[in-house]
Amino acid sequence: MKIAVDVMGTDYGPKEIVKGAVDAVKAYGCEVVLVGDENIIKEQLILNKADKDSKISICNASQVIAMDEHPAIAVRRKKDASIVVASNLLRQKKCDALVSSGSTGAAVTSALFCVGRLPGVDKPCIATTIPSMKGATILLDSGAVVDAKPEHMTINAIMGNCYAEKLFNKSQPRVGLLNIGEEETKGNAQVLAAYPLLKELKQINFIGNVEGNDIPKGDVDVVVCDAFTGNVALKFGEGLANAIFTLMKESIMQGGILAKIGALLMKPALEKMKKHMDVQEYGGALLLGIKAPFMICHGNSKAKSITSAIRMTITLVEQNVVGAISDKIAEVQQGNEEIEG
Amino acid sequence: MKIAVDVMGTDYGPKEIVKGAVDAVKAYGCEVVLVGDENIIKEQLILNKADKDSKISICNASQVIAMDEHPAIAVRRKKDASIVVASNLLRQKKCDALVSSGSTGAAVTSALFCVGRLPGVDKPCIATTIPSMKGATILLDSGAVVDAKPEHMTINAIMGNCYAEKLFNKSQPRVGLLNIGEEETKGNAQVLAAYPLLKELKQINFIGNVEGNDIPKGDVDVVVCDAFTGNVALKFGEGLANAIFTLMKESIMQGGILAKIGALLMKPALEKMKKHMDVQEYGGALLLGIKAPFMICHGNSKAKSITSAIRMTITLVEQNVVGAISDKIAEVQQGNEEIEG
Repeated sequence: MKIAVDVMGTDYGPKEIVKGAVDAVKAYGCEVVLVGDENIIKEQLILNKADKDSKISICNASQVIAMDEHPAIAVRRKKDASIVVASNLLRQKKCDALVSSGSTGAAVTSALFCVGRLPGVDKPCIATTIPSMKGATILLDSGAVVDAKPEHMTINAIMGNCYAEKLFNKSQPRVGLLNIGEEETKGNAQVLAAYPLLKELKQINFIGNVEGNDIPKGDVDVVVCDAFTGNVALKFGEGLANAIFTLMKESIMQGGILAKIGALLMKPALEKMKKHMDVQEYGGALLLGIKAPFMICHGNSKAKSITSAIRMTITLVEQNVVGAISDKIAEVQQGNEEIEG
Repeated sequence: MKIAVDVMGTDYGPKEIVKGAVDAVKAYGCEVVLVGDENIIKEQLILNKADKDSKISICNASQVIAMDEHPAIAVRRKKDASIVVASNLLRQKKCDALVSSGSTGAAVTSALFCVGRLPGVDKPCIATTIPSMKGATILLDSGAVVDAKPEHMTINAIMGNCYAEKLFNKSQPRVGLLNIGEEETKGNAQVLAAYPLLKELKQINFIGNVEGNDIPKGDVDVVVCDAFTGNVALKFGEGLANAIFTLMKESIMQGGILAKIGALLMKPALEKMKKHMDVQEYGGALLLGIKAPFMICHGNSKAKSITSAIRMTITLVEQNVVGAISDKIAEVQQGNEEIEG
């Protein structure tokens, strides 16, 4: 299996991405093709003592799309940008999957332009895996399409359902609609319209509305929401967790010698808890609705996240998630046509 | 100063509410009128050794609105529900403010029907105070009106600005629009329409878009959003913080004797951090746009939250927040009329 890794345009630079990819090759035995500035990549491979590794190849790309560039304009103009070159490798089947941690907007646009949508999918969506008390929950859409229509949310639910089946190895995962109350009559116009559509879907185990606090509890496997709400909630949660850990560290530093000894003794327990809640353990969010596995990582990904994202990508390729999604959507569409016919 | 406290319809029952009110009277010297079932309240006052306290009075209400009742129907039908009776005391100026921790929907409806809106306010909004790294941030609307129009969001920004000036004793608080990116061109149709309106407002210090993770950082004082997004994000954050603290406790319990000794030594530092991030320190959310101070607490409020909410309410009455909001809205409207004229 060969995975294309976009090395450019991230917050911490190619160093972290190359290291993460090298570690993944060592740990999981996959092949990777590193896409980006050839000289920078070679230099980093030497630093990681991996320049002679036959499982690692380089595909040069002379341009980079920065975080603040307009995605559609940049993807159209920069034909040799690393994300565009990597997406074309995926389209040409020169690799089995793609991992990127550059601009999310550029990645989504590049996936649409170069790789293309699955039949029956109007808009793609980003499925993020969030740690919970009982394991993890998939939240989608967490950032691809704002102002999604209720019909998009039902397609997203079907895709999320297939993804959860494969990722969690679980049949009939519980699918919920993110809302501000449990009752069917609660919510804004968008979710009020989406609810009956989801309820009708025979292909999923729809458990009704879920609220924000149900996500960390882990009583739901797939949470469907619009990209605006999903993105705001995710970032708020991320910021809050950071604030809690930072304040904890500060309190310990200000707490004198006893607090410091206490922290030292508690360290293994704290590390275990932090590992449980660490988003880096999942590493990436899958872009659903695209013809091939396309993994989007946080712009601030460090080596560990990239390694985790590659591990996750290998599983998704092995499990043929994209094929399962494609089949399920075809099944739903056929059902709809029969009803209409 | 006299504050009406709705004692009924909460998750933990009248016990916690009465105790919180008694503690507030002792701590802050205010008067309270407890609204609800007279017999239950008397019993609780005896248990709290406060049945002879001249600063505490009872106003009997024979009905209760439950959490799952339809707010508008229940408020209209149950004329003697505690929240309706308390709201009428506020309208008749028999008290200076109201604190409720029953059904939020019933409280908002009762406030609208019995107390009424300020001139120029079409829809009220709930302003929740969230702890941050640098103190606290006001998030509004956090649950009153879903599908708010951009014009409502500008009125909310003005009201939130006045509230922050008084609550944080800060001139020119920073007001941000909750979005999925910093750029003016980012977001869904609602925020794209609200942005230029907020930018034009001379009465506020608008700092542009803020993202979910900016809230816990504390670089913004007032965050404007629609009630759907605000409510989902708040509940997600609440659930996440709970999950972190629960997992921490579990890790310590499973971590053997050293982890337990460590936790004991770290306890003061951990308590300090928890106190900093504790929403109960604020206790209540102010319902803005109503003619008198109307404080809404979480349905699961314990005595401590009620005491905090009463302390906060006393400050808001002393500072005449409602008067300040009313004046500012009149000023904005006059400005608009002059431009139109």
